[in-house]
Amino acid sequence: MRALEISNRELLAFMSEATNFAAEYWASLEERPSYPSTSGSETARLFDRPWSGEGRGSKVLDDVRVIAEHVRPCTGRFFGYVAGSGEPVGAVGDFLTSVFNQNTTSWRSAPAAITIERAVIGWLAEAIGCGGFAGSLCGGGSMANLMGLAIAREKALAANEEGARPGVVYASEQVHMSIPKAIALLGLGRSNLRLIPVDADFRLRTDALEAAIASDRKFGNTPVAIVASVGAVATGAIDPLRQIAEIAKSEGIWLHVDGAFGVLAALAVPEKFEGLNLADSISLDAHKWLYQPIDCGCLLYRDRDAARKTFSHSGDYVRVFNQDPGEAFAFFEESIELSRRFRALKLWLSLQYHGREAYREAISRDLLHAQLLADAVRARPELELLAPVPLSAVCFRHRVKSNEAILQRVIARGRVYLSNASINGHFALRACFVNHRTEPANVYEIVSEVIAAADELNA
Amino acid sequence: MRALEISNRELLAFMSEATNFAAEYWASLEERPSYPSTSGSETARLFDRPWSGEGRGSKVLDDVRVIAEHVRPCTGRFFGYVAGSGEPVGAVGDFLTSVFNQNTTSWRSAPAAITIERAVIGWLAEAIGCGGFAGSLCGGGSMANLMGLAIAREKALAANEEGARPGVVYASEQVHMSIPKAIALLGLGRSNLRLIPVDADFRLRTDALEAAIASDRKFGNTPVAIVASVGAVATGAIDPLRQIAEIAKSEGIWLHVDGAFGVLAALAVPEKFEGLNLADSISLDAHKWLYQPIDCGCLLYRDRDAARKTFSHSGDYVRVFNQDPGEAFAFFEESIELSRRFRALKLWLSLQYHGREAYREAISRDLLHAQLLADAVRARPELELLAPVPLSAVCFRHRVKSNEAILQRVIARGRVYLSNASINGHFALRACFVNHRTEPANVYEIVSEVIAAADELNA
Repeated sequence: MRALEISNRELLAFMSEATNFAAEYWASLEERPSYPSTSGSETARLFDRPWSGEGRGSKVLDDVRVIAEHVRPCTGRFFGYVAGSGEPVGAVGDFLTSVFNQNTTSWRSAPAAITIERAVIGWLAEAIGCGGFAGSLCGGGSMANLMGLAIAREKALAANEEGARPGVVYASEQVHMSIPKAIALLGLGRSNLRLIPVDADFRLRTDALEAAIASDRKFGNTPVAIVASVGAVATGAIDPLRQIAEIAKSEGIWLHVDGAFGVLAALAVPEKFEGLNLADSISLDAHKWLYQPIDCGCLLYRDRDAARKTFSHSGDYVRVFNQDPGEAFAFFEESIELSRRFRALKLWLSLQYHGREAYREAISRDLLHAQLLADAVRARPELELLAPVPLSAVCFRHRVKSNEAILQRVIARGRVYLSNASINGHFALRACFVNHRTEPANVYEIVSEVIAAADELNA
Repeated sequence: MRALEISNRELLAFMSEATNFAAEYWASLEERPSYPSTSGSETARLFDRPWSGEGRGSKVLDDVRVIAEHVRPCTGRFFGYVAGSGEPVGAVGDFLTSVFNQNTTSWRSAPAAITIERAVIGWLAEAIGCGGFAGSLCGGGSMANLMGLAIAREKALAANEEGARPGVVYASEQVHMSIPKAIALLGLGRSNLRLIPVDADFRLRTDALEAAIASDRKFGNTPVAIVASVGAVATGAIDPLRQIAEIAKSEGIWLHVDGAFGVLAALAVPEKFEGLNLADSISLDAHKWLYQPIDCGCLLYRDRDAARKTFSHSGDYVRVFNQDPGEAFAFFEESIELSRRFRALKLWLSLQYHGREAYREAISRDLLHAQLLADAVRARPELELLAPVPLSAVCFRHRVKSNEAILQRVIARGRVYLSNASINGHFALRACFVNHRTEPANVYEIVSEVIAAADELNA
């Protein structure tokens, strides 16, 4: 037998054991704590070991059972960050992705996979009212934002021959950390991000944006891009897209929409995203509001030529001879990666398994859950809602007790998981709903757990 | 029932159908053509469709059977590019990765996954003789090279506040396209890549490297990094690591080793990689020479602080409170992504299932297969070997016939798949062995298929 070869019988047994584990694990999620009881020294003791010379065969699945006790379970009671719940059909899709093992970089290297990714890109664009946009899948919102700003930079500065000249990017104070990170990576200069003040609803103030652009023009600085957040990571605030788009258009500046958190809610509440289709590029995360397993980000853009100018650096060994436009297509010419996973397959399977209406309904439920929580917070005199709730993030605080202490205690209690945000100088407790497993009863547990944790602080 | 919910019974049936498909598909690989008989219009007809409102349920697996006929199968007769063969345990690992759906970005968000990724990074570093290096997994070699050069740029120019000043990168003429792509993205300027001539064996000439650095110093240009290729994508040439490392050290320049193709061969032939552990950063691809499903790249580096200075841009909402060094660890502070798949799980399972010796043996077989092909080419008077074979890429040509026509015909015949390269102005046929399914008989088929294709050109 060849090295690494496994008999068909052995492989079927291995897969059967893995899928039985998966079914049991998923079925057990409701009983699991929202955060595991573990520590850094315990995970090191369990998993910090050398690679052994001899194989352990299917006994490696014993490890998987141990791992299950030290992961953060995707229960319906996890409300931290913007963490999608991991839809099981998508997980099977990821398995089949690796069975096919297609380098989804050009039609020539992966015919079906390329065609399916392009179809799925069309579904996503259509779902958010941006039919006709091109794009590609990527690891997540950070990568999508990096690519969007890279295209904007290429368009504004065409700087790649001699080295970047500095250019300026505008975004609200509430902008996600991936934007300054992208600006630094692109060599635009961290100090060239203009943080524009927000209004009382945490939305970018367009008067301040116009003033900032005018000031930069006066000093001879080159605007590269305006970033609109949809929604802002802490509060879900949706920047005023149409007004920003009008400014971008009249100033001739690229408009990138960071929609990693919220833009897919356009499937359920399109009226909140009016003006979105005026953007030049839009990032989104199917592993957030389409509940797919990580990783599944996406960048959409209007102008394929601009993307190609930014990312096309082909070597001889991948040159595509074919002149048929479908067969000559290459994602590596329009995006950052060369080796690319067949990420579209999980979307293809999961989105069709359930259908568009089921996704619309699941997103609507998340939006409803956020309103339920906001109402429940308003109903408790000791709690204070700290921001409006335009999407599904709810920021609130206990008026008296240390909210940092409450948060640590809530997490330690293990029933619900919240994260935190800084809102007008307050340490906020933050719950975010992008979770198809959440029931209304779980929403009310957030309040009862926070109150219980606060009561414990008296003891 | 909630939207997107699936009963346990339904899910088990779905997974069972998917795994039975996978087992049959893997078992059928030997009978499959090395390239599918399809076209751009056919894949469009089959897969270009809208997202339907209603769900199709488990019928979506019918699509998977159709997809299987239009993918590029990972047979033992595929020798194009540097394409790993997709080890099945790794595919099961990718499934479990998505079952757990951990955002492997900080210990807090994914305790077991973080610890396991750090352990696996240790295995990879150890396997190539670089024990003690830190690092992270990423999508592939392009991303790893981008991160390595980003760290080098930060170190040399500390330019992130005001915008990048141009800096110079040195690499051989044989450098992979991901390096110029990274230089452009980082804003260093495409024209600031110095392509250093190679010797007769396609290895970077260190005398020319020294001259280029001296010339840049004279004109006041700032060297940012030297990139050594291990091996060069066309021929597998291994740049002289020790001599380059000595130059890098005496000049105080970051040494990045692009090891995406070849560095994991150090597991089998460490003597070919002498000096590797003097690098500052090293990229490698476990989806190439550890046969893992795409995507599974890695960047290793010596200086964690340099990585943190480059990539750390934390927002409040992810701030880690914990001061235990294990629990405070965050990959997003040392790498480009924020949402990160639990990529290490497939390595954890596959590498332990088979054990290190089996991997060493599989790589040794690939190296042997390359030598068998080189010998077989030398034995045919109508064929010419175009480059030495230090690793597992073999470049050759037919002395008389059009090699471009031969290549198209070989691919159309469907028995073996080759790609191409440009070697000293010749259009080269190129076979690369990173495939645990290849048998020696498949190696000899390369020669017989090329001869048969050439004969067809007479007809």
